[in-house]
Amino acid sequence: MDSLAQYKSDFLDFLKSYDINETPEQLYKPIDYILNLGGKRMRPILVMMSAEIFSGQHKQAMYAALAVEMFHNFSLVHDDIMDDAPLRRGQKTVHEKWDLNTGILSGDAMLILAYQLFEHYPDEQFKPLAKLFSKTAIEVCEGQQYDIDFEQRDDVSIEEYLKMIEFKTAVLVGAALQMGAIVANQNKHTQDLIYDFGKNLGIAFQIQDDYLDAFGDPEKFGKQVGGDIIENKKTYLYLKALENDSSGQLEHLFSISPKNPNSKIETVKSLYNSTGATEFVKKEIKNYTQKAYKSLDDIGIPQQQKEILIEFGDFLMNRSV
Amino acid sequence: MDSLAQYKSDFLDFLKSYDINETPEQLYKPIDYILNLGGKRMRPILVMMSAEIFSGQHKQAMYAALAVEMFHNFSLVHDDIMDDAPLRRGQKTVHEKWDLNTGILSGDAMLILAYQLFEHYPDEQFKPLAKLFSKTAIEVCEGQQYDIDFEQRDDVSIEEYLKMIEFKTAVLVGAALQMGAIVANQNKHTQDLIYDFGKNLGIAFQIQDDYLDAFGDPEKFGKQVGGDIIENKKTYLYLKALENDSSGQLEHLFSISPKNPNSKIETVKSLYNSTGATEFVKKEIKNYTQKAYKSLDDIGIPQQQKEILIEFGDFLMNRSV
Repeated sequence: MDSLAQYKSDFLDFLKSYDINETPEQLYKPIDYILNLGGKRMRPILVMMSAEIFSGQHKQAMYAALAVEMFHNFSLVHDDIMDDAPLRRGQKTVHEKWDLNTGILSGDAMLILAYQLFEHYPDEQFKPLAKLFSKTAIEVCEGQQYDIDFEQRDDVSIEEYLKMIEFKTAVLVGAALQMGAIVANQNKHTQDLIYDFGKNLGIAFQIQDDYLDAFGDPEKFGKQVGGDIIENKKTYLYLKALENDSSGQLEHLFSISPKNPNSKIETVKSLYNSTGATEFVKKEIKNYTQKAYKSLDDIGIPQQQKEILIEFGDFLMNRSV
Repeated sequence: MDSLAQYKSDFLDFLKSYDINETPEQLYKPIDYILNLGGKRMRPILVMMSAEIFSGQHKQAMYAALAVEMFHNFSLVHDDIMDDAPLRRGQKTVHEKWDLNTGILSGDAMLILAYQLFEHYPDEQFKPLAKLFSKTAIEVCEGQQYDIDFEQRDDVSIEEYLKMIEFKTAVLVGAALQMGAIVANQNKHTQDLIYDFGKNLGIAFQIQDDYLDAFGDPEKFGKQVGGDIIENKKTYLYLKALENDSSGQLEHLFSISPKNPNSKIETVKSLYNSTGATEFVKKEIKNYTQKAYKSLDDIGIPQQQKEILIEFGDFLMNRSV
């Protein structure tokens, strides 16, 4: 995946050259800080990759790529306040490094700056970009709200859970790819197909995240394996297992927080297996991945270009399952 | 000013008919709540008034009017968090009635919903509306940041103070009027003139607010007269008086908070008079009001239409000075 590294490097160069306002310092320094904390830059890379596939050039997509990254970081700054998170990528979160008000106001400014970045495009691209962005942004807010709501609820259905992960993370993946298509002047049908590719891949990725949290290779998975179980987090595995667990054991285990969680983690995992949840979830990951690839069939570009997207999908999904 | 009441009533009808999303409830109920708390609805009225003056009809401006009101209420929700304010228009603020996270997230959603409202306009109006909105929104954020910064600073210049009130409140008044002109298909020159009218009137209004806080008629002024002095707030009067007060008395008085503030209020007010600040500020209110009216000279509409704006300006500025 050499091209991914190239896109990332181009994006970072662009970010460095992008003149963000300087005053008032207290408003713009935190924006500069969070934008330069690092990360995989997956979303802006997708905007560029999509533009490249459709038009043979990715640099025209830079402003849209930065808009998507700006929005993503806006949501991180506000979500970190809501989650009371002290760290982000190993560094202090904005509200910790500065304060609550700075986190709120700098976040607000980032949302507006994201919209302003689309002004670099001609009128016929500006409106579709801004419309898609607004639709996506409001869905991300709704997804975040569902996520907050679900913590307090005992009756979350699998359907609701899927809608939550779709809104909270998958739609932005779809939108990133669609923006590349808009910048490359593709028609609405093609835009919809590439959007669906990204959305379904995003859902597959998010379900896989739930799966890996319980069954991933501790050496390769970035976070603590079993973390969701320790925190009694209602994941896809949990919700599916709950449907099939008539013993009430799982529900009980998710109401306690033992000091040494090892035995709880093992019992929960064997319940995931015995209820068939593990198998079901593995199948769902496959289903959504295949659904994503299927969207590519109808897109009118050479197979060679499609391979780039498939390669990317494989790269994304072949983490240590 | 019969027409003002008519615009307000039309706006409230439109607000009632406007279908805001319903789920997730926790996200949208607070938006419904704050939008229906009341208020003078001055900003949406200005959008409608401007469209009416230029095109003879104000109903086409409804979506833009609601966008401006939506943005204004977004800024109230987030500002109330930053100011830790328990009440807004005599009712609980959103973060008090719900919680901090609800205030942040519902506010974010309102900012996005405001942008979405412009999608009701044709492409050639959508971009200028969204551009003007973004420019104004980022200035309002900057103004809010300057306001926060100034609380901690002892060296705020009058020039900086003017920029702060311009950004924090006046630009939105100008933008409201310009949006009416955009919806009524006016050219950029006319848009700029009506914007300047609103901006300068907004500055005059804001300076007058500082003046009335000290010298207003307690019977007619909505807030406690002397409130700014009690809170040691750096107003236009204070900053001008400080320039001319070599005794250091004013600086001292703004470093204390006596239980009974009456004698402090009286001494500060006589310092405002003796330093010439009161006269200067009264002149400045007049200057900005006249500057506003002067912008109207070059607008190519019948004098009769201009009179509506002048009448509105007089109505706004002839509070109990």
